[in-house]
Amino acid sequence: MNGIYFDGEKAVYREDLPMPVREPEQSLIKILMANVCSTDKEILKGYRPDFKGIMGHEFVGEVVESPDPSLLGKTVVGEINEGCGKCLYCRTGREKHCLSRRTPGMSKDGCFAEYMALGTHLLHIVPEGLAPEQAVFTEPLAAAVEVTKQVHIDPSLNCAIIGDGRLAYMIAQALSLTGISLTVIGKHPEKLKLFEPFAETQLLSDYYDGDRFRELTADECFEYVVDASGNESGFHLAVHIVLKMGTIILKSTYAGNASIDMSLIPVNEITVVGSRCGPFEPALNLLKEGKVNFPPVDFYDLKDFEKAFSSKAFKAGFMIR
Amino acid sequence: MNGIYFDGEKAVYREDLPMPVREPEQSLIKILMANVCSTDKEILKGYRPDFKGIMGHEFVGEVVESPDPSLLGKTVVGEINEGCGKCLYCRTGREKHCLSRRTPGMSKDGCFAEYMALGTHLLHIVPEGLAPEQAVFTEPLAAAVEVTKQVHIDPSLNCAIIGDGRLAYMIAQALSLTGISLTVIGKHPEKLKLFEPFAETQLLSDYYDGDRFRELTADECFEYVVDASGNESGFHLAVHIVLKMGTIILKSTYAGNASIDMSLIPVNEITVVGSRCGPFEPALNLLKEGKVNFPPVDFYDLKDFEKAFSSKAFKAGFMIR
Repeated sequence: MNGIYFDGEKAVYREDLPMPVREPEQSLIKILMANVCSTDKEILKGYRPDFKGIMGHEFVGEVVESPDPSLLGKTVVGEINEGCGKCLYCRTGREKHCLSRRTPGMSKDGCFAEYMALGTHLLHIVPEGLAPEQAVFTEPLAAAVEVTKQVHIDPSLNCAIIGDGRLAYMIAQALSLTGISLTVIGKHPEKLKLFEPFAETQLLSDYYDGDRFRELTADECFEYVVDASGNESGFHLAVHIVLKMGTIILKSTYAGNASIDMSLIPVNEITVVGSRCGPFEPALNLLKEGKVNFPPVDFYDLKDFEKAFSSKAFKAGFMIR
Repeated sequence: MNGIYFDGEKAVYREDLPMPVREPEQSLIKILMANVCSTDKEILKGYRPDFKGIMGHEFVGEVVESPDPSLLGKTVVGEINEGCGKCLYCRTGREKHCLSRRTPGMSKDGCFAEYMALGTHLLHIVPEGLAPEQAVFTEPLAAAVEVTKQVHIDPSLNCAIIGDGRLAYMIAQALSLTGISLTVIGKHPEKLKLFEPFAETQLLSDYYDGDRFRELTADECFEYVVDASGNESGFHLAVHIVLKMGTIILKSTYAGNASIDMSLIPVNEITVVGSRCGPFEPALNLLKEGKVNFPPVDFYDLKDFEKAFSSKAFKAGFMIR
């Protein structure tokens, strides 16, 4: 079959890939479309040094073989952390943290190909009326919804999101549904425009006085701050703009150590919540009901993967025929 | 009056201190006893460079003047953060974080003296039947109770406390009342003995393999980890022993920057809760009902402050006659 294979150094388009061999409890999925995530680009930079295989983890597909006959022929999306099913994490609803989990495009063959095998219990049927072009946003939107799963957002308070990229956009869409007063702080005026329908926007530079943070009054600070900036400076700004007894939600993962004044956390009684993958069902509901909307995906053929990886669109992906 | 005065460099016993001048909304308190806190010793090391005045903030006293006649003659303890009453923090139940708050022994005259003036709304009557020798533990015990105010402790899970000092002891006493499986990790076998009636104890060195952390299985990790170690290494150990999706409660405040791999927080979805001063009423209830118990305080006269400051007892304090 055709697919995009990471050979340990670079991505290669191959037409000679073997069909996936499904394990008894897995389903075989014919991939219809698949989106590129920043993580895929990180893989190309060496984020997963031990991984070789088919890339990609965001997809919509059709079940062609399954131990669950009710899934056959159904259009599905799939969670990406396939746990061992036996360890403490798998037994306590934390399969995504299973130490021996397998993740498409990161530690097992992924979805930038014609077919993929995945644990049947990870599949979610795309509800009728939801176009695959929107359903393909389920996985990243679920990561945004994870914020409201982890933290009770009191809508009478205020919230800042640091970052103006795709993740920030999904989080902003999800949080705006609570009715909370929302401010998005970013670097790029052109990207911030996208947030204007549902959030106040501010430039990162508004918070600096030369190379130092500007002094803020309590009324300029936020009860909730989501760091989706993708770099260490985002956390520093978050600590600066969060109210005492407020909550920082850390969505950014970046390599390397950050040097921070840890005493600020107990002294100001800040709560820092690390946040990653999230629940699929609420994401599918929001997409189906049109409560969130994303700009159209810039779709390519698999063989044009270089164009997809370098696309400047809000989101690029593959349409697999 | 007599008292222990910090002159900006050192503590001095003085007999010529002026009586406190009470503001209209404050009460005047005759101090009966007052305990030494580590913070007092930090002041001697320069923790509050701008402060000069009477030291001390943990006390039991008798109200001798007050705008509230029902308090006159009553034995009281007092919260220590006297806010402006007007700012966002004071208006939203966070007076202890008021940016212009005054704190006895840190930014206003404290309780190591015969009399002190304090905001009347900060006073709590010591319930009948509670000896002043136990009531004097209210303030530090409240800081321990703050943990259960901030975090829902599921008693069917497990909890580790890092540290074997006084704060760790109070937190351990408070958390053991939830019924949770409790482990205290400390450096000092002789201090750990004190915890044995209500917690499993482990040596810090059990977690090291040479100068590196020992690999742990999920079953050796903890859902809740309270860092009351007082130094940066406590946080590093906390991150190592907390389960993924678990909670770290940071009680340690220490100067200087800590260098940490921040990506562990989102990747492992850890929650870090900074925790400081806490609520007095539950602390008074626990003390009154004998649910928590502390070793007897090593009491001194004010003029023997050097002995009190260097005492090796669980807690040293002053009996003021």
